[in-house]
Amino acid sequence: MLTKKGAATRQRIIDAAADEIRERGVGAATLDDIGRRSGTGKSQLFHYFPEGKEQLLMAVAEWEAGQVIEDQQPYLGQLTSWQAWHQWRDVVVERYRRQGVHCPLGVLITEIGRHTPAAQAVTRQLLEQWQRQIQAGIEEMRERGSISRDVDPVRASAALIAAIQGGVTILMSTGSADHLEAALDLYLDYLRADAPSYS
Amino acid sequence: MLTKKGAATRQRIIDAAADEIRERGVGAATLDDIGRRSGTGKSQLFHYFPEGKEQLLMAVAEWEAGQVIEDQQPYLGQLTSWQAWHQWRDVVVERYRRQGVHCPLGVLITEIGRHTPAAQAVTRQLLEQWQRQIQAGIEEMRERGSISRDVDPVRASAALIAAIQGGVTILMSTGSADHLEAALDLYLDYLRADAPSYS
Repeated sequence: MLTKKGAATRQRIIDAAADEIRERGVGAATLDDIGRRSGTGKSQLFHYFPEGKEQLLMAVAEWEAGQVIEDQQPYLGQLTSWQAWHQWRDVVVERYRRQGVHCPLGVLITEIGRHTPAAQAVTRQLLEQWQRQIQAGIEEMRERGSISRDVDPVRASAALIAAIQGGVTILMSTGSADHLEAALDLYLDYLRADAPSYS
Repeated sequence: MLTKKGAATRQRIIDAAADEIRERGVGAATLDDIGRRSGTGKSQLFHYFPEGKEQLLMAVAEWEAGQVIEDQQPYLGQLTSWQAWHQWRDVVVERYRRQGVHCPLGVLITEIGRHTPAAQAVTRQLLEQWQRQIQAGIEEMRERGSISRDVDPVRASAALIAAIQGGVTILMSTGSADHLEAALDLYLDYLRADAPSYS
C-alpha cells in the first residue's frame, strides 16, 4: 500500500507521462522527460515503477481508460431521465469530436501490444465499467416505466457500447462524427419506442 | 490498361501476397517469398508494382477490403426480405467469429499507416460501399412497406455500419461475438418496429 503522499507522487508521474505522450507521442516520451516534467528523480520513478517504462505505460493506459468514463460524468452515472440520456449523448459526441483522429488510449494500447493480456485487460475493464453504467440506466428507466420491459438491459447496453465503439473508430478514420451520432440517435429511438408511458 | 493476361498475373501476385501476409504476418512476408509463391520473377513483380512492397501492400489492402463485401454476398446485395436480412446478419456474425482476433485488412491498414491518405481511402471506400448496399436494402424494404417511412435510410445504414464496426472491434479484443450479435439484433428490431405491415 502507498502512503497518501506516495500515491500523490505516483499520480504526478502518471499525469506527467500522460501529458508527454499526448504532446510528443509514446515513442518520443522518455523517462528523463517524464521525470523532469513531474519533478521526480530517476530513483523515485523506479521506486514507483520498478519495471520501467512498460509498467508506467500500463499505469497511464489505466488512467486514460478512467478518463474515458470520467469525461462522461455526471450523466453516464445517472441515466435516470430522457434529459440525462440526451445530455450524455451530446457529451459523448462532443468528447470524441474534440479528440478527433488521435486516441491517447488507443496509442497506448497499440504500444503495449493490442493482443497482450495486459492491454486486453485494460480494454475489457473499460468496456465492462462503461456498459455496467449504461445497463444501470436502462434498468432504472425500465423500473420507472420509461423503457419497455421488452428491452433486455444486458443486450441493449452491449449493443450501445458496440455502436459507440464503432462510431468512434469511424470518426478516427474519417474525421466525421456522422456515424457516431446516427448510431446513438437510433439507439435512443429504439429505447424510447414502445415505452409504456408512450402507449 | 492491363491485358487480360496481365491482369491475371497481377491478381496472382496479390493473391500470393495476401496468403503470405495472412500466414506469416506483414513484416515477415518478403517480395522473394511472394514471387516464389505466385511463380513470378522479381522483374515481373516490379513491372506490376514499380514502387515495390508498399504499392503491393496497398493493392492487397484493396483486395482484402473487397473480400469483406464479397463474404457477405449474396445477402448484402439483396436485402429485400426479412429472411435475407436475418441470413445476412448470421453471415456477418459467422464471418467475424471465424476471423477471430486477427483482421487481415486491419494489419495492412496499420502497416500502411492508419492516418495516411492511402489507408484512409481504402477504409472510406469500404465503409461507403458497405453502407450503400445496406441503404439500398432499407430503401427497398420501405418501398415494400416492410420498414416504416419514419426510418431514414442514410442514418439507419450509417448506424448499422457503426454497430458492426464496433462489434467487430470488441470481438477482436475480447474474442466474444456477444456485442456484435446484440448490436445487429437491436438494429433489426429497430428496423422491424412500427412497420406498416405490423400495424
